[in-house]
Amino acid sequence: MSGPFQTFDDTSAGGPRTARLDALRDEIKKRGAHGFVVPRADEHQCEYAPACAERLAWLTGFTGSAGTAVVLAEAAALFTDGRYTLQAPMQVDVSDFEIVNIAETRLADWIARRLPAGAKLGFDPWLHTAEETERLRVAVRKAGGDLVAFDDNPVDAIWTDRPAPPSAPVVTHPEEFAGESAQDKLARIREALACAGCDALVVSDPHNLAWAFNIRGGDVSHTPITLGYALLPSEGRPTLFLAGEKVAGEAARHLEALADRAEPSALAQALATLGQSGARVRVDRATGAEALRALVADAGGEADVGDDPVTLMKAVKNAVEIEGARAAHRRDGVAVARFLAWFDREAPAGALTEIDAVEALERRRAETNALADISFPTISGAGPNGAIVHYRVSRATNRRIAPGELFLIDSGGQYRDGTTDITRTLVVGDPTPQMRDRYTRVLRGHIAISRAVFPKGVTGAQIDAFARAPLWEAGLDYDHGTGHGVGSFLSVHEGPQRIAKLGHTALEPGMILSNEPGYYKTGAYGIRIENLIIVEEREIPGAERSMRGFETLTLAPYDARLIDKSLLTPEEIMWIDAYHARVFEEISPALDEGTRDWLTKATAPL
Amino acid sequence: MSGPFQTFDDTSAGGPRTARLDALRDEIKKRGAHGFVVPRADEHQCEYAPACAERLAWLTGFTGSAGTAVVLAEAAALFTDGRYTLQAPMQVDVSDFEIVNIAETRLADWIARRLPAGAKLGFDPWLHTAEETERLRVAVRKAGGDLVAFDDNPVDAIWTDRPAPPSAPVVTHPEEFAGESAQDKLARIREALACAGCDALVVSDPHNLAWAFNIRGGDVSHTPITLGYALLPSEGRPTLFLAGEKVAGEAARHLEALADRAEPSALAQALATLGQSGARVRVDRATGAEALRALVADAGGEADVGDDPVTLMKAVKNAVEIEGARAAHRRDGVAVARFLAWFDREAPAGALTEIDAVEALERRRAETNALADISFPTISGAGPNGAIVHYRVSRATNRRIAPGELFLIDSGGQYRDGTTDITRTLVVGDPTPQMRDRYTRVLRGHIAISRAVFPKGVTGAQIDAFARAPLWEAGLDYDHGTGHGVGSFLSVHEGPQRIAKLGHTALEPGMILSNEPGYYKTGAYGIRIENLIIVEEREIPGAERSMRGFETLTLAPYDARLIDKSLLTPEEIMWIDAYHARVFEEISPALDEGTRDWLTKATAPL
Repeated sequence: MSGPFQTFDDTSAGGPRTARLDALRDEIKKRGAHGFVVPRADEHQCEYAPACAERLAWLTGFTGSAGTAVVLAEAAALFTDGRYTLQAPMQVDVSDFEIVNIAETRLADWIARRLPAGAKLGFDPWLHTAEETERLRVAVRKAGGDLVAFDDNPVDAIWTDRPAPPSAPVVTHPEEFAGESAQDKLARIREALACAGCDALVVSDPHNLAWAFNIRGGDVSHTPITLGYALLPSEGRPTLFLAGEKVAGEAARHLEALADRAEPSALAQALATLGQSGARVRVDRATGAEALRALVADAGGEADVGDDPVTLMKAVKNAVEIEGARAAHRRDGVAVARFLAWFDREAPAGALTEIDAVEALERRRAETNALADISFPTISGAGPNGAIVHYRVSRATNRRIAPGELFLIDSGGQYRDGTTDITRTLVVGDPTPQMRDRYTRVLRGHIAISRAVFPKGVTGAQIDAFARAPLWEAGLDYDHGTGHGVGSFLSVHEGPQRIAKLGHTALEPGMILSNEPGYYKTGAYGIRIENLIIVEEREIPGAERSMRGFETLTLAPYDARLIDKSLLTPEEIMWIDAYHARVFEEISPALDEGTRDWLTKATAPL
Repeated sequence: MSGPFQTFDDTSAGGPRTARLDALRDEIKKRGAHGFVVPRADEHQCEYAPACAERLAWLTGFTGSAGTAVVLAEAAALFTDGRYTLQAPMQVDVSDFEIVNIAETRLADWIARRLPAGAKLGFDPWLHTAEETERLRVAVRKAGGDLVAFDDNPVDAIWTDRPAPPSAPVVTHPEEFAGESAQDKLARIREALACAGCDALVVSDPHNLAWAFNIRGGDVSHTPITLGYALLPSEGRPTLFLAGEKVAGEAARHLEALADRAEPSALAQALATLGQSGARVRVDRATGAEALRALVADAGGEADVGDDPVTLMKAVKNAVEIEGARAAHRRDGVAVARFLAWFDREAPAGALTEIDAVEALERRRAETNALADISFPTISGAGPNGAIVHYRVSRATNRRIAPGELFLIDSGGQYRDGTTDITRTLVVGDPTPQMRDRYTRVLRGHIAISRAVFPKGVTGAQIDAFARAPLWEAGLDYDHGTGHGVGSFLSVHEGPQRIAKLGHTALEPGMILSNEPGYYKTGAYGIRIENLIIVEEREIPGAERSMRGFETLTLAPYDARLIDKSLLTPEEIMWIDAYHARVFEEISPALDEGTRDWLTKATAPL
């Protein structure tokens, strides 16, 4: 793979789409139905879907990361959330699609009200989870209609130039990075299945597939996964359902030792056969398609919709993965330090733009000679753009980073030994007292998470407010979680671990999370400070409980010009000074002299 | 009503019970079944059940607050939790009943394993909620058996001297205390029902019945409720199902203006009639019996098992109730101050016992001439007894409060204007450094809750850890929630508001909660510090969110001898000094000179 990985073209491809909507309505009618649901989802509920799965964007023009269209004979609506209420009407022809904010009207309520009694609503059972389908079914029943699974997707029937499915080669993820053989992982999964009384597991999450078989791929952007399935019996040899063209050479030999192989099209028959034998088959609640559930259940088996046990196993990193994460963060830290030094040198002239910053940072990461991809499109927001939490810079929105403004940059790299994700907020010139107050409050929340110690069993939901308390004191808050899970050369957004109101998974040693409180002043500036942290066991003299705390993985200085020392406790100042000393110690040996001089100043004690 | 309200006899009435078990098995057989479930529950899932509902205690001897027996032809088990694993084997004949800790074996799993295939398991549908019944049904189905609702309870058939249902007179709860007319409350409930698309609500929770109709009663200990039901149509006049003998005079006139009245036995027919009309009837998830659900559903109606809207309305106190709570706490504070002064005078001689303390405190509360009842049996634990979270002193366990020991006393009063609940931990003589360290950590957590500010929408689950952090820092914790809701001259344990890991209700202004972190050293001592607090709106200059905080209702000093000032921040010291100053200001005018002198010292600045 090679960069550049980020492009800046407007993704809202223009052109009239009314003809597509008309053609879709004809296709729906042909199938004897009144309407059809088009989610932004592929068969695996992936965050980054392949181009062939971008049916929603093709049909509506909407490119946001969360949305669903419902097309009825006389009405059509695009449902999305608060993040996209500005973007959606700019991308979508509102004479074709009503734009609906799901916070105001839920999709189920809209269907219950708009679908005529007796009407059939079609859906593609490969693009909805079992639980989602159940909610759809309840809504359709309320309207007095019928929810009908279509055998083929009517969008595909009219999308004549639909891209082919991706076919990037599968590569092995050697034990030097994985830390555990696929054989041992598969044995652990079999044990978990037996414990849960399941005869088999369908692995529908490509991240879990990658982890379980120690393989990686390149089928989607930014996350090194290969799209496919595995069927894992609690006893005996698993079957991998992967397009044959993707598997050759070393990967083929590696997989041969582990599993039988079949084309993805053979999965349906395999599930039906299992179902006929009366088997109890675990289908992943989060990523398993309704079609998987139905194939098992309709054949007479028991489809057990629950958690894929791999999800939790994958979240808990082993010693090799942890050491890899540390190495990846030292390497990434060198690139980030070089970027920050460059920024401090260039920005005061007032000519840099958001895109310049993205390119400069990606270049420095590439110069590590270890960058496999960026882990997500960099969020690079100057001034008011920093206040847009999911901002993605394009040529059209690209903004100069002006003196007196804050600049927020949230980015990460995929390295074979680990995935990184870091946000720093920088000032060009002099910050206002309000900027320093807000930055310092966000930093205090960030430090509170870093310093937290808590007993075994405590969840991310229980500590989330530690990060918010300094903002709450001033009547402020932020509208996103404090932290998400992170994979090991896998997705930068990994579950089930989270630090958020709904993060109900216990934090176990080895889990990697982000720690990223923020503050956003609409129309003015955004602040976010993000490190990755890893849960570790913590020895405390006299402790009566088994305790945990966090080790910080990310190594990059905070912008001291934005810190109001008078708002900090002595413990907080000590923490920052110790962290900065560690950053210098771990990063400086790999730096050129100019950057090292810069880092010396940037990490000086407060 | 008049005291004394607490007695100290051993409640584990002895005597052989095997004959009862045999007789019950005969009754079960007569009904064509193989087994029967005996929960510790009445028809309303009340915390304090009337004597006639104590079937579990009568059958097994077990008097704990949580337990269920399952009696099969060849086996019988009593299921309870970790709090009662010591008590249960002492009260129960273990040759009759296997004692099962539900943390180790769930009731459902035991049934799934022990019930023979094809066997019928009977249950009393008035004593289980709809959701509980569903869980039972799944377990019985797993065993290949059938769950069968009995028309009458087989325990009642053999319990020849079963007490009659209570019949304490209903009294009105005038607007001077309630702050809102029953008419207005009923109108609000009707609105909520219409909003939820319900045609009627069965009020099955006697606390909700009391709140909605502005009545109180005396059917159970410590909570001034009357047992009964209401059927509240979304339009038209409600019907109250209350034993006629309980309603006379002023209460009868008050209720006549609000509702029709019928005997409780008429409820079944009324629900069936509603069901036949196809009505959608809300049945309370928390307290509504399976029988209520089945009566509606079997007649063809829609039983909508969900939250009784009254529960949330009742939790949010109005201005009159808040003013009442303040007055009740000033009055209670005087009694508590007199008790604490007496304790400090008497305890050093080393002759006081736990029961002496309970009696002395109840006497001082009674001397306010406003005490309607204690709000629960006082927990009075000296030394190691203080470490038993749900300790209840009896003549057999009564312990001398020895010098050098900690003494924990958790108590409350029912006054017509408000319900109180306070815990103080006291030292006799000199505490150890460890005692002071632990006490100060608990106090810091208690102060963190008191001082918390948070935006609208924040739940108790989100702030619970604020109270634990000072203990976590030392590797310590406590195994109970930080706070429960409290009623207004109603239950001292009221939902849905809680400060606990599972407290997922937003904290709204007007909600009363306890704030009671603790620390328990098994075999040595227990520490708990509890005030009642009330959620209030909080104005913060420059705030961008609607903010809330807490006003402290409870007025009593902390034991300064147990505070290690060196562990406190300046803000915490200021908070304690300000609180103590307020206690003195509000309580001292009503004190005798001796107590006032004591309070002057007890509330001196740290």
